[in-house]
Amino acid sequence: MNSATQPISHLLSPHNTPDLLDSVDAFLFDCDGVIWKGESLIDGVPQTLDFLRSKGKKLVFVTNNSTKSRRQYAKKFHSLGISVTEDEIFSSSFAAAMFLKVNKFPQDKKVYVIGEEGILEELQLAGFTGLGGPEDGQKTAEWKPNCLFEHDKSVGAVVVGLDPHINYYKLQYGTLCIRENPGCLFIATNRDAVGHMTNLQEWPGAGCMVAAICGSTQKEPIVVGKPSTFMMEFLLKKFNLSCSRMCMVGDRLDTDILFGQNTGCRTLLVISGCTTLPDLLDPSNKIQPDYYTSKVTDIFELMRP
Amino acid sequence: MNSATQPISHLLSPHNTPDLLDSVDAFLFDCDGVIWKGESLIDGVPQTLDFLRSKGKKLVFVTNNSTKSRRQYAKKFHSLGISVTEDEIFSSSFAAAMFLKVNKFPQDKKVYVIGEEGILEELQLAGFTGLGGPEDGQKTAEWKPNCLFEHDKSVGAVVVGLDPHINYYKLQYGTLCIRENPGCLFIATNRDAVGHMTNLQEWPGAGCMVAAICGSTQKEPIVVGKPSTFMMEFLLKKFNLSCSRMCMVGDRLDTDILFGQNTGCRTLLVISGCTTLPDLLDPSNKIQPDYYTSKVTDIFELMRP
Repeated sequence: MNSATQPISHLLSPHNTPDLLDSVDAFLFDCDGVIWKGESLIDGVPQTLDFLRSKGKKLVFVTNNSTKSRRQYAKKFHSLGISVTEDEIFSSSFAAAMFLKVNKFPQDKKVYVIGEEGILEELQLAGFTGLGGPEDGQKTAEWKPNCLFEHDKSVGAVVVGLDPHINYYKLQYGTLCIRENPGCLFIATNRDAVGHMTNLQEWPGAGCMVAAICGSTQKEPIVVGKPSTFMMEFLLKKFNLSCSRMCMVGDRLDTDILFGQNTGCRTLLVISGCTTLPDLLDPSNKIQPDYYTSKVTDIFELMRP
Repeated sequence: MNSATQPISHLLSPHNTPDLLDSVDAFLFDCDGVIWKGESLIDGVPQTLDFLRSKGKKLVFVTNNSTKSRRQYAKKFHSLGISVTEDEIFSSSFAAAMFLKVNKFPQDKKVYVIGEEGILEELQLAGFTGLGGPEDGQKTAEWKPNCLFEHDKSVGAVVVGLDPHINYYKLQYGTLCIRENPGCLFIATNRDAVGHMTNLQEWPGAGCMVAAICGSTQKEPIVVGKPSTFMMEFLLKKFNLSCSRMCMVGDRLDTDILFGQNTGCRTLLVISGCTTLPDLLDPSNKIQPDYYTSKVTDIFELMRP
């Protein structure tokens, strides 16, 4: 595509914000870097969400962060003073469990988890047996002669997500299952390189752990989180909406904005998270959102008289 | 290349082994999966090495395993009853230090290590200041609000090798240095997916840790181990030999055999390690050694009257 036909992103303004609001019935929000950074809510978010609800807009939260289940996310929203129901949350932990369900993963097979409690909880709610996760965070694997590192041969899927307790034990366990258990699936919740796990800086994301397993297995995963369109299938079952009447709001070009584009949504990039304005404007960047703005609360601020 | 022009690997036989011996002055051996598996020597190796030395052949050990320094490798050989000098050993830990030296890495800059003691020892011997490595194996990184994970701004290179004590602290430290310290180098000792760290099975190799850092930084490393030709430069400085008069003996197609081919050596694949005979013969395999055999001791056995 040459520069003449390259889509141009528009800075959100008092002029185009009413048009955006009129053209969509639902806003899909990423969470990390959009709604909050770590445990810190971004200023003005509750007013913005209230404003959108008052205009009759559906709100949906689509997060690649797999550390929490939908129940745990609803609790986090509540603790930050925002009322959100589990039904409005589509986390990549939930997506992993739903992917197995849709693909009729056998109930007698197990799922090894490199990641946090959120994935295990969603697996359990979907009727699957998970193992690994936090309880393997303290385990060690030593190279001892004549000792075989044993793994469960009934593991039929390895789910890899963000794991701040990643260790060699988990890497070897997941690698053995994928390499040695016939047909074992390798599922990535997402491949975000980094994320705002705390308010002051970015940290390695699930993309780091997923890449580690790609490195040892030399296989590529099935990705269920953004930019994969898998989560949209579930979202559409819940809400009687057209993708063209949705706007995806996120801070990452390669996950949020690409997800929006892959599913036919309008897209709004916020500069409050991983992506900087120079990143967006760099000639090497091929992912152009429809709109961009500094933070999600601009939607509210720009509509004020 | 079609099948008619595809080079064909020859099974080592009583017929062609004398020709191979006559045509080379030096044998370059990989270690893991060739000389030993973990701490267990492969049967017959001492006799084979003695035999080759008695025929006037130079022996060189070129290993991608970065956990040990050359001194530590010489000690390991000795403990297994094989006499090898430090000068005959070219480990990827040594290669990492030599890469920095050749490229005039400033002495006032530091090197962050994701890996084991071997890398730190080689860095120190080359006059560089290393940090990280084993001492960061017990450190933890927690996502606390308003806490900044600090890193040393004077780190000018991150060296990533095989690390059985990989953790999120090291991943965040290395990621921050590469992303935030201007010009910081990202050096991989090697990218082996797996290796025979123990005699009974394979384990994730440095390729796993390197991929993790690629995943979080979205950068590609400089590789100093096989199949990169960097180690050959040092080898040639030590020995007055021509590459065409060398034979690289290894168990991995994508590191050992490719290294041999990249440097113009003859190549011999042994089936005693990572590569199986079906792997070699699979039509998708594009890396064909000159010769293959079941284990390194066949060189000796096939020469017996």
